[in-house]
Amino acid sequence: MKKLALVTAVLAATAFSAGAQQMKPEDQIKQRQAGYRVLGYNFGSLAAMAQDKKPYNKEEATRNAALAAAIADYPRQFFGEGTDKGETKAKPEIWQKRSDFDAKMDKMVSETGKLPQVARNGDLAALKKAVGDTGSACKACHDEYRNK
Amino acid sequence: MKKLALVTAVLAATAFSAGAQQMKPEDQIKQRQAGYRVLGYNFGSLAAMAQDKKPYNKEEATRNAALAAAIADYPRQFFGEGTDKGETKAKPEIWQKRSDFDAKMDKMVSETGKLPQVARNGDLAALKKAVGDTGSACKACHDEYRNK
Repeated sequence: MKKLALVTAVLAATAFSAGAQQMKPEDQIKQRQAGYRVLGYNFGSLAAMAQDKKPYNKEEATRNAALAAAIADYPRQFFGEGTDKGETKAKPEIWQKRSDFDAKMDKMVSETGKLPQVARNGDLAALKKAVGDTGSACKACHDEYRNK
Repeated sequence: MKKLALVTAVLAATAFSAGAQQMKPEDQIKQRQAGYRVLGYNFGSLAAMAQDKKPYNKEEATRNAALAAAIADYPRQFFGEGTDKGETKAKPEIWQKRSDFDAKMDKMVSETGKLPQVARNGDLAALKKAVGDTGSACKACHDEYRNK
C-alpha cells in the first residue's frame, strides 16, 4: 500500500523498534522528558487557575486536565536500562528503589486521573484540593528521584 | 493552603504565564516539539503494527491511539509570534500561509481522531487504512512546513 510506504518516510526521525525498552537510552530519555513537559504545562495551567494566577476557564481547564490525565503514565515506560546516564535529571535511586518509585508514580497517576472530573465540574474549591493533592504527588517523586 | 504553595515549587521549571501565546518563544517551541515527539512515538508504534514490523497488540494499540488522539491538536497553540526562529525545523511558510497550515493540521487531527476506534476494533485492514491516511496527513504538513 503506497500510503503505508509514505508513513515510513514520515517516521524516519522517530527511533523506535519493538517497544519502549528496546529503544536507545537517549531516545527513551527524550520521550519521558517530552511526556513530563506536556504534563507540566497542562498541570501548570490548572494550578495557575487554582492559585488565582490566571482566570478560571472551564473549557481550558477541561482540556488541560484531559491531556494531563492521558499522559501521566506515559513517561514511566522510558526508564529502561541505561537511561540513568546522559542528559537526564533522573537520580540513580530510581533504579535502586524501583518499587518505591513505581508506587510514587502510581500515586501521581491516580491523583492526576481525578483532575478531569473536577475540572469539568467547575467547583474551584474542589479544583484547589485536587491540584494540591496532585502537586504533592509530583513533589514526592521530584524530591527523592530528580536532581535540581 | 500549604499544598498549593508546594505546587509552585514543583512548577518552578515550567515557564508559563497567562497562556501559551504569552510564553517565551523558546518555551513554546519546546512544548510543541514535546507534543510532536509523543505523537510520533505513539503513531509510530501503531504504524509499525500496521506494517507488520511489530506484532499487533490490541492493548498497546489502543493505548497508542488514545494518546495520539489526545495530543494531536496540542502543538498547534505553540506557533505564536517569534517562534519561527531558534531551535526549530518550522519553516517561515507556516506564518505566511497560516490558513493552509491550519487546514493541514485540522486534517491530521481529524485522521488521528479515527485511530482509537480502529485500534480497539482490532481489524488490521482497517488499521492499515487509518494509519495510511493519518501518515499522509502528517506528511502533507512536513513536506511543506518542516525543514529536514
